[in-house]
Amino acid sequence: MAQHNLQQTISLLGRTPAALDALLRGLPETWTLCNEGENSWNAFDVVGHLIHCERTDWMPRARTVLQFGETRTFEPFDRFAQLRENRDKSLAPLLDEFARLRSDNLTELRALNLQQEDLERRGRHPALGVVTLSQLLATWAAHDLTHLHQISRIMAHQYRETVGPWSIYLGVLQCAGHSS
Amino acid sequence: MAQHNLQQTISLLGRTPAALDALLRGLPETWTLCNEGENSWNAFDVVGHLIHCERTDWMPRARTVLQFGETRTFEPFDRFAQLRENRDKSLAPLLDEFARLRSDNLTELRALNLQQEDLERRGRHPALGVVTLSQLLATWAAHDLTHLHQISRIMAHQYRETVGPWSIYLGVLQCAGHSS
Repeated sequence: MAQHNLQQTISLLGRTPAALDALLRGLPETWTLCNEGENSWNAFDVVGHLIHCERTDWMPRARTVLQFGETRTFEPFDRFAQLRENRDKSLAPLLDEFARLRSDNLTELRALNLQQEDLERRGRHPALGVVTLSQLLATWAAHDLTHLHQISRIMAHQYRETVGPWSIYLGVLQCAGHSS
Repeated sequence: MAQHNLQQTISLLGRTPAALDALLRGLPETWTLCNEGENSWNAFDVVGHLIHCERTDWMPRARTVLQFGETRTFEPFDRFAQLRENRDKSLAPLLDEFARLRSDNLTELRALNLQQEDLERRGRHPALGVVTLSQLLATWAAHDLTHLHQISRIMAHQYRETVGPWSIYLGVLQCAGHSS
């Protein structure tokens, strides 16, 4: 198992809500409500997805590992919940909600005072099979980064034509690293 | 020419320093000083690059367009300046410097009170040839996003092994959209 420094993970997890807030709050909707075409997500949808993860994914699954180990498979995650839940909302309250849920979840995580042997405990993912608590918590942080990466790409897409010939120099416009 | 709303560009440009500050200030150096291998950049290098752009790229080139049009080719940009300039610095003062330079540049940009006919003015890029002021300013914003995208990818790379089997679900770990 790759070495996992939990404090390092928590330090990133604690910063994501403020980073997204600084980037997105008050931005014109051309940036936050436009997507990459067809059924792709916009930045607003991504924040909704992060909220749904705070509610149903990371800490609920961590609790499942600690209580039931491999004997109880994680609840499957609903990737489209935010498209139903946030239809009539605006971005600012979603940013507030994300910050509040993240803060509560990190308070709970710190209170668990997990030790190395806890991080090695195993749970069962519905598609991936056996995973460790360490992998779950590392994924929580990397998942923040995958969506910051995605938001950057979605927003840059809005300027794909506007930048003219510079597009060949802008790595984000060549990105094929879509979240699945 | 694709339609370009300059207020929309400025609203993004004004947020990037605070977003990077919220994400990076005080983060453990495992996140900010590790790169993607070989001679790739870490997050610290990227912030240094953004500073160098504020000093020598965007507004200096905008001035060149407005004063000389296509008759004066832009100074070539030094993509490696920050690797020399910031050797003995730490991240926090670089974040401060980026915020200050960006703020000064946006003050100057707003004071120009550019109109649609100004945005259509043409300059000459050393490699791309004729470009418009509109394209230059749109690229300034998209360039912020390309580097936010890059920083997310660089940091996620540090957890490539730690996330275990979840790596297949994390789009950022499949990204091949490198900045050039």
